[in-house]
Amino acid sequence: MTALAASGLFKDGAHHYPVRVFYEDTDAAGIVYYANYLKFAERARTEMIRLFGLEQRELMEQAGLAFAVRKCTADYLRPARLDDHLVVVSRLTAIGGASMAVEQSVTRDGVPLVELSLKLACMTTEGRPARIPPDLRDKLTFHLSETM
Amino acid sequence: MTALAASGLFKDGAHHYPVRVFYEDTDAAGIVYYANYLKFAERARTEMIRLFGLEQRELMEQAGLAFAVRKCTADYLRPARLDDHLVVVSRLTAIGGASMAVEQSVTRDGVPLVELSLKLACMTTEGRPARIPPDLRDKLTFHLSETM
Amino acid sequence: MTALAASGLFKDGAHHYPVRVFYEDTDAAGIVYYANYLKFAERARTEMIRLFGLEQRELMEQAGLAFAVRKCTADYLRPARLDDHLVVVSRLTAIGGASMAVEQSVTRDGVPLVELSLKLACMTTEGRPARIPPDLRDKLTFHLSETM
Amino acid sequence: MTALAASGLFKDGAHHYPVRVFYEDTDAAGIVYYANYLKFAERARTEMIRLFGLEQRELMEQAGLAFAVRKCTADYLRPARLDDHLVVVSRLTAIGGASMAVEQSVTRDGVPLVELSLKLACMTTEGRPARIPPDLRDKLTFHLSETM
Repeated sequence: MTALAASGLFKDGAHHYPVRVFYEDTDAAGIVYYANYLKFAERARTEMIRLFGLEQRELMEQAGLAFAVRKCTADYLRPARLDDHLVVVSRLTAIGGASMAVEQSVTRDGVPLVELSLKLACMTTEGRPARIPPDLRDKLTFHLSETM
Repeated sequence: MTALAASGLFKDGAHHYPVRVFYEDTDAAGIVYYANYLKFAERARTEMIRLFGLEQRELMEQAGLAFAVRKCTADYLRPARLDDHLVVVSRLTAIGGASMAVEQSVTRDGVPLVELSLKLACMTTEGRPARIPPDLRDKLTFHLSETM
Repeated sequence: MTALAASGLFKDGAHHYPVRVFYEDTDAAGIVYYANYLKFAERARTEMIRLFGLEQRELMEQAGLAFAVRKCTADYLRPARLDDHLVVVSRLTAIGGASMAVEQSVTRDGVPLVELSLKLACMTTEGRPARIPPDLRDKLTFHLSETM
Repeated sequence: MTALAASGLFKDGAHHYPVRVFYEDTDAAGIVYYANYLKFAERARTEMIRLFGLEQRELMEQAGLAFAVRKCTADYLRPARLDDHLVVVSRLTAIGGASMAVEQSVTRDGVPLVELSLKLACMTTEGRPARIPPDLRDKLTFHLSETM
């Protein structure tokens, strides 16, 4: 785990991103609060996309675009706990003209705890749907094959 | 909206719970961060169940039980923004021996922004599945008809 | 408590704002996570200022201004727990040309749990210090006397 | 920065811990939400203490003890923004029989953005003050000199 870089790395066709569980992530039931896995997943997607060469702040400031989650399904199989060392495994599974699909698994010691399936849409900062810029789409498509 | 009590109220067979959007809920894209709708939904479920006569802390301390989310699907239709006054509409749609299903809609002026569908399981505080205690199950079943 | 409106109310020269503790606010130690009291305090300040007639989103969109916290001191006296019904008591204690001071106490049954002292500065959305617009300053000064 | 291990490292008598700013950390003003710096600081303290050989979950489960923040002062000098790469610099500055003091600075490119000063108290999980166990106190005292 300590070998995982801060931005994660690609291995076996998927992006692997390390997450440590801190007090902020847990709740009074002693486990990670259910909404917080979506934060872990978003961090992993951001770092995966950063490794593709895309900074989201640049995308927002230069192109006025952001990726917004349109649909998210989460299956909670086993709880994570304080101090756990997790790895978020992410795969880009489809790219459309204005959207993309990502499959993610929050794992501990290789065992899946939460499985997520997401559809993201490219949006203007005013909230209107927008086409993914061609050069970005090319980058994503290149990596699509890599993560399958 | 100001007429809505802090715990929400039942109307048209559903629980209505008010949520104000604060800075903490938003992100740099100017909209509510996608994981935070799950917080709004959990607040609404908690208050709905509280109106059924159940305090979750009592359930945890006295019976060693808690309801954990097993599956959550969220459809993001329109974004909410800072200062928005939202209403979370919740319906209990099924009760099993150890689980229940809830449908929720985060709305603004009656328009759905995010639709959620959840399955919750009764768990011991050690994380093992448990049957819902009979008196609690009776209460939930009573309200099931009320919210349909 | 149930008598407290969603925006709180002024009583004895201070703004009183109700907060319910949900799972999202707690951590694995069974108490409210220390950073989350700052969220409660910010909600209360927002509602106090809203009762003064100021919507922060309008301030941001129309005048390009926001209030940013410059200094915050928090004394943690007693922990809050799941399901607790808290009241945040807020007093505006000073108004300057570009800043204001607020004293806040997160209480349960009239007993202070966390005491906060804050200095807020008026800023442009680009992050530069700015003078508080005169009409807004008049409103705040009017309420300053009210809350002392 | 990429050289910083996930747990941070000691350098020049202080613990250095890397934090990337994600969407979850920001708000609609385009900057990191003020309460979230306390999360960054707590992550850094946890990792510093972990490097001292202490796992907080073990402390809680085996000794029934946790460190709770009793006082926190935060000076907000400059805002952090989306995608920023921050380093939290932490120094243990005092150890008492039942408490310790920590000074922390959230920095970007060596420039301090937020300065924090904290007092933490050793508590039982029931919330009563407790003395720091002697072996733990020895470890902390050993590192106190290291970080000064």
